[in-house]
Amino acid sequence: MSLTQTHCPDASAILMAQSRIKPFINHTPVLTSTTIDRLIDAQVFFKCENFQKVGAFKARGASNAVLSLEQNEIINGVATHSSGNHAQALSWAASLVNTKAYIVMPKNSSKIKVEAVKDYGGFITFCEPTLASREETLAMVIKKTGAVEIHPYNDYRVIAGQATAAKELIEEINDLDLILVPVGGGGLLSGTSLSAYYFSSHTKVIAVEPANADDAWKSFNRKQFVPSVNPLTIADGLRTSLGDLTFPIIMKHVEDIVTVTEGSIAKAMRYLLERMKILVEPSSAVPFAALLEKKLDIRKTKIGVILTGGNVDLDSLPWLKHE
Amino acid sequence: MSLTQTHCPDASAILMAQSRIKPFINHTPVLTSTTIDRLIDAQVFFKCENFQKVGAFKARGASNAVLSLEQNEIINGVATHSSGNHAQALSWAASLVNTKAYIVMPKNSSKIKVEAVKDYGGFITFCEPTLASREETLAMVIKKTGAVEIHPYNDYRVIAGQATAAKELIEEINDLDLILVPVGGGGLLSGTSLSAYYFSSHTKVIAVEPANADDAWKSFNRKQFVPSVNPLTIADGLRTSLGDLTFPIIMKHVEDIVTVTEGSIAKAMRYLLERMKILVEPSSAVPFAALLEKKLDIRKTKIGVILTGGNVDLDSLPWLKHE
Repeated sequence: MSLTQTHCPDASAILMAQSRIKPFINHTPVLTSTTIDRLIDAQVFFKCENFQKVGAFKARGASNAVLSLEQNEIINGVATHSSGNHAQALSWAASLVNTKAYIVMPKNSSKIKVEAVKDYGGFITFCEPTLASREETLAMVIKKTGAVEIHPYNDYRVIAGQATAAKELIEEINDLDLILVPVGGGGLLSGTSLSAYYFSSHTKVIAVEPANADDAWKSFNRKQFVPSVNPLTIADGLRTSLGDLTFPIIMKHVEDIVTVTEGSIAKAMRYLLERMKILVEPSSAVPFAALLEKKLDIRKTKIGVILTGGNVDLDSLPWLKHE
Repeated sequence: MSLTQTHCPDASAILMAQSRIKPFINHTPVLTSTTIDRLIDAQVFFKCENFQKVGAFKARGASNAVLSLEQNEIINGVATHSSGNHAQALSWAASLVNTKAYIVMPKNSSKIKVEAVKDYGGFITFCEPTLASREETLAMVIKKTGAVEIHPYNDYRVIAGQATAAKELIEEINDLDLILVPVGGGGLLSGTSLSAYYFSSHTKVIAVEPANADDAWKSFNRKQFVPSVNPLTIADGLRTSLGDLTFPIIMKHVEDIVTVTEGSIAKAMRYLLERMKILVEPSSAVPFAALLEKKLDIRKTKIGVILTGGNVDLDSLPWLKHE
């Protein structure tokens, strides 16, 4: 078992993750917009993980986890429950090492997401749309197959993989004052905060969360874990609760968490499409929404924003319904 | 008056254009997709000029033209008639040298385009939506202001500027077998074919045109100029006729011109948004439409595709109406 599974990732674990996954992932571009810089009165650097393999940063964590496993551990496949990008990412990552990915998905998952997992070669077991059913079904699948569970975020190998997005951004853009990321389960947030701590210690990390799914904000401010209970947000990647591995890293290394409204998430998503010509999913638009809402005191600073993914059903763009 | 205005651009003119505009334009990324490569059975490299300044490659030609002018030529401003991306590009380019841009636009131009020109500081004079009225109004504006006309494509300085997109692509991706570009007035096409000729002589250039606006295809095959007469295509940037400067370059250096249907243009645009997460305007989707239609014998080759721009009214995406 690799060290990164049992210890919180340090600088060396992040560097190892970076070289381990490098041959398989996209080195995503960093885009800028003078219109946005003028609007925000700051320099904003968008790290475009919507152009990542499988359309989301999740490819980093999933591939680092899978590639960290020994040959004998991997022989029976990998497994997870996920209705989102981790399901696709794990299916893709398993294919890199010619093993199987068993994905437990709620039976009400969108057809597009089910098809995407199948396209990447994942084997789907459907369950009821409750956390209890997801966990029971996953336990059953693992018992039957002998597959190794790869959790979407509460796994140090996954966290180290997600950390590589900020690592690349820091390498490319010097002297960032701040990196903004969305927070759901906290895999990307904890990884980003570790990369900033180890490789650019003056760079602060602030997380942004939908106000309608503010469990991380509450947990952070109360310094005590608060679960996410049926949140209603279009940012479907950010509905989950923090994990017992991600929460302590966040408490230690994250500067602040702020929240944004549903309206400004949709507005931010449309703005990025209209002005920057890039498609991001609602969850990815959340940090930019905080800039549009002028929630942060960031005038004249250099800000990195990780655009986390671009997997969207084009027939369900929020402004088609809400505007 | 600069040499590039009076002579067809050679290698040196293209290199000079490249260094002249470099401080002002974006070095746009080249993106790839394994899904598309598998679908097409070739390697496709997308040069993303939709991420260019003003959202289109037109920034290259306009800035090269404006920056080529002497101080005394520029003092009274620059002028053009355009309802499209050249209007924005010239307004932006004029602002680089602190001069004025006078833009003649048909009075039925979309509000979004009018606003965009104003945002970049252009001074608009409206005219009737006919070529005669455009030309008369422009002549009047030039007489009144003393501004220099910068034609959207029939200008060697503009052609040299447009050539720099393919030049950058050739520098980044070695040994391209083919570059695909759309053709309207032929500024980008002639520039691209010159860059291929001078900097990568084994790379063929093929143009793609909407079947509903096939004047360039006809001109190329008849070896005689055929004008574009009120073509009905969603690719609004490709409705113009070739120019007397662009047509001879195209006849000399372009391998072939092929046409695509309106349906496949819309499909290609949506495919690029859905899979590659990038927004392109209908005109930009035209070359990829030829790949989707399997119009070309390109199996196992390396293909560059210039995605020319991303200026789209999000409320008028073609599949919102046509699907």
